[in-house]
Amino acid sequence: MFESAELGQSIDKETYEAQVPALREALLVAQNELKAQRRFPVLILINGIEGAGKGETIKLLSEWMDPRMLVVRTFDWPTAEILHHPPAWRYWRELPPKGQIGLFLGNWYSQMLHQRVMGHIDDFELDRQLEDALALEQMLCDEGTLILKFWFHLSKKQMRRRLKTLKNDPLHSWKISPLDWQQSKIYDRFVCFGERVVQRSSRNFAPWYVVDGSDPRYRGLTVARTLLDSLQAALDSHASRVVQPHAAPLIARPDNRRLLDSLDLSLKVDRADYHQQLEEEQGRMSRLMRHKNMRHHALVAGFEGNDAAGKGGAIRRVAEALDPRQYRIVPISAPTDEERAQPYLWRFWRHVPPSGRFTIFDRTWYGRVLVERVEKLIEPDDWLRAYSEINDFEENLVRFGIVLVKFWLAIDKDTQYERFKARENTPYKRFKITDEDWRNRDKWDQYVDAVGDMVDRTSTSFAPWTLVEANDKHFARIKVLRTINDALEKALD
Amino acid sequence: MFESAELGQSIDKETYEAQVPALREALLVAQNELKAQRRFPVLILINGIEGAGKGETIKLLSEWMDPRMLVVRTFDWPTAEILHHPPAWRYWRELPPKGQIGLFLGNWYSQMLHQRVMGHIDDFELDRQLEDALALEQMLCDEGTLILKFWFHLSKKQMRRRLKTLKNDPLHSWKISPLDWQQSKIYDRFVCFGERVVQRSSRNFAPWYVVDGSDPRYRGLTVARTLLDSLQAALDSHASRVVQPHAAPLIARPDNRRLLDSLDLSLKVDRADYHQQLEEEQGRMSRLMRHKNMRHHALVAGFEGNDAAGKGGAIRRVAEALDPRQYRIVPISAPTDEERAQPYLWRFWRHVPPSGRFTIFDRTWYGRVLVERVEKLIEPDDWLRAYSEINDFEENLVRFGIVLVKFWLAIDKDTQYERFKARENTPYKRFKITDEDWRNRDKWDQYVDAVGDMVDRTSTSFAPWTLVEANDKHFARIKVLRTINDALEKALD
Repeated sequence: MFESAELGQSIDKETYEAQVPALREALLVAQNELKAQRRFPVLILINGIEGAGKGETIKLLSEWMDPRMLVVRTFDWPTAEILHHPPAWRYWRELPPKGQIGLFLGNWYSQMLHQRVMGHIDDFELDRQLEDALALEQMLCDEGTLILKFWFHLSKKQMRRRLKTLKNDPLHSWKISPLDWQQSKIYDRFVCFGERVVQRSSRNFAPWYVVDGSDPRYRGLTVARTLLDSLQAALDSHASRVVQPHAAPLIARPDNRRLLDSLDLSLKVDRADYHQQLEEEQGRMSRLMRHKNMRHHALVAGFEGNDAAGKGGAIRRVAEALDPRQYRIVPISAPTDEERAQPYLWRFWRHVPPSGRFTIFDRTWYGRVLVERVEKLIEPDDWLRAYSEINDFEENLVRFGIVLVKFWLAIDKDTQYERFKARENTPYKRFKITDEDWRNRDKWDQYVDAVGDMVDRTSTSFAPWTLVEANDKHFARIKVLRTINDALEKALD
Repeated sequence: MFESAELGQSIDKETYEAQVPALREALLVAQNELKAQRRFPVLILINGIEGAGKGETIKLLSEWMDPRMLVVRTFDWPTAEILHHPPAWRYWRELPPKGQIGLFLGNWYSQMLHQRVMGHIDDFELDRQLEDALALEQMLCDEGTLILKFWFHLSKKQMRRRLKTLKNDPLHSWKISPLDWQQSKIYDRFVCFGERVVQRSSRNFAPWYVVDGSDPRYRGLTVARTLLDSLQAALDSHASRVVQPHAAPLIARPDNRRLLDSLDLSLKVDRADYHQQLEEEQGRMSRLMRHKNMRHHALVAGFEGNDAAGKGGAIRRVAEALDPRQYRIVPISAPTDEERAQPYLWRFWRHVPPSGRFTIFDRTWYGRVLVERVEKLIEPDDWLRAYSEINDFEENLVRFGIVLVKFWLAIDKDTQYERFKARENTPYKRFKITDEDWRNRDKWDQYVDAVGDMVDRTSTSFAPWTLVEANDKHFARIKVLRTINDALEKALD
């Protein structure tokens, strides 16, 4: 895999100096076109052998290009804040917005390679992390990001020669010190696992470029030219997107029985039981949230449901049980322009709670496969891929120890009508009902289908949906509280 | 000052229960009106004696109101990230945006009181911190924020009684444990310094409300009603703002001599000297940024100047000297909508570097008194108060150890014309020149006045302006690098 990169590629000074001025100009023009289009971001991942010129090349690029639109991020020792969030969180918050170039050093590949070389993880775990990385990259590409991955290579002999001259370079070494690199074993392991990483994670949407790092002029020109070519191609391509062949729901639905129709909406609790059970479950939640094991966990609760199904009331009963400092309620409405400049899930990642805390989402990332699907705000391709992106996202949270509960609050059409009318007739509830609510109601059946698909595709073992029969508000609130408590209890034990 | 609050105010259960429903409704309506108007945020500060019901009242408010629009923040033990930024940074990043209510527990008053009670600071320092707090609040009010400050009081006897029943309350105590409070001395000192704080920081724009905390019903109703009254008044007031009587520049300017005219724009360095000096200063900067004392400092460089004065080129020469991981370049253009929902300086606070790092602002917070003034985007009142707000902001940075350098790159009108024309004729520079640049040029004299005012009012001992003669780009770049280096060297020694 690294054979050509050990041939000792080089470029003489004259050729180099003849080519650089035009290349720099073209890069600047492309960068400004990127900014002007504001259509997609560029993400460059830099990895490879110590001493092969990673740092120097980054420095060269920031000299050649406009450094104001080229953002370099290193991910070295994590702060406490980072350690209290799922591993992917630190990358999400540094993603370049549309129109910008982000350069990630010490990225996910560096982390997994370092762990594998040092023997902290095995091949199985390395492959799992590779799969995660590819899912992330695939999602970013689907959202429009242009990804370039550069692997800087050196033969063992070349590396040793370089390290001697590099000892005092502040740009050297990421976690593995030059001293460590001088051991044959480290180099061999790094190349062996590096090859595995490069081979398994080279995909059409984000291939690796292996660069011979022995000659500074050669590697500089190679990287810059590769970047320029990709950038120009992406800027010129206004081709409409590839059409997804599976643009219809993938699961054949039985004719008459739909998931939501199968709910028994007549379920209720009577008033006296309600108050007793409410107090019980709220007390239980309050105790669970103060459990000493909570410091290894966090809680995310997502609320979806028909308009007027009682999401607000249920959320309020949850909040009542808690110290207002433990939770954050995040109401999801139209994205801000900073959010629009990022991949879809970015606006939810930014609210993922640290260990010990609780985030309540009032409407969630499922908007993608509900309102955005039904209102045709996005292409079928986009909401179809959203199912697996969402599953990946949730698996990321759960694997880190976050307890995730998701509720669909279901009422029938008549109950909704009554509640809409009641809202219109109650002065302090009037703000809760808008023309849009009435319009949504006309699409009732489309929503029933969308909810059915959503549950079929995203109710997983690690993040199951809870359908809540909500014609009786009291029943719904108790079921919500009890579900959260059961999930918490299971995790904390 | 706390006399009336020791009278033992109380409200009987019947009266309370008769009043609560209407109050809750009115609060909900007001909260939704606040959200709909999205015209200003509300900031509630909660302070006072341990056991006087601060936590309980917050919990009550979040039950009565819509918790999705009421964000509670506590500022207790700072994380490493917080300690690496100026003290005000942690408050800025949690400010509620327009349309929201933010409730700050453990706010700036708690911090200063705790320090004073424990004897970590003296009266002089307490007064200084009070002044800072008032400057911040004044600025927030001028930006439209409605501020309410509640002081919860208890007599010593009442406090002791309450503490006995409170021992297991998770909402209790901020830094001072209930055990400490039981010492007479702590109470006395807290009341003594608390009185000083309340007295000195009660201003018409943000008065304190002292609340007798002995009866839960009384204090709950009192706080809720005060909040409601203020909120309703603010929502109803569409009165045009009070007109500033000093709407003209405050400094009488001498007739002929203007600050920018006094520069000797013929200054230059020749090419050979330039390359030698550039290398010297870049090397010096690289060494200084790696100095071990840099971990106690950070660097902020702000660049302003005429269009085409060479800001970009100067910034690039600074960046070249450094490891791309040490600095961030923040280009300032139109604010995002998240930024527009916050006070003006918020978008700069979010980029203040932590210790050891360097932020370069390509255009700065001075846009307020330059382009926004000249283009009449804001009222004279706004840019007039901006001078002192900016001075406060910069003093905050410098006091924390941040080295702050500010450059105005000045060229004459002929030089600008030549550079504009050159840009139009160079393919890869064409994006740098727009119609707006030509329009700005027509306002040359207004900018000269605005720059003169700006330097007169904001060139301070702790953050002086450096005017850079930039007709010769080489001269300008060397002066910029040398100025930064001199400032760094002075701070690091």
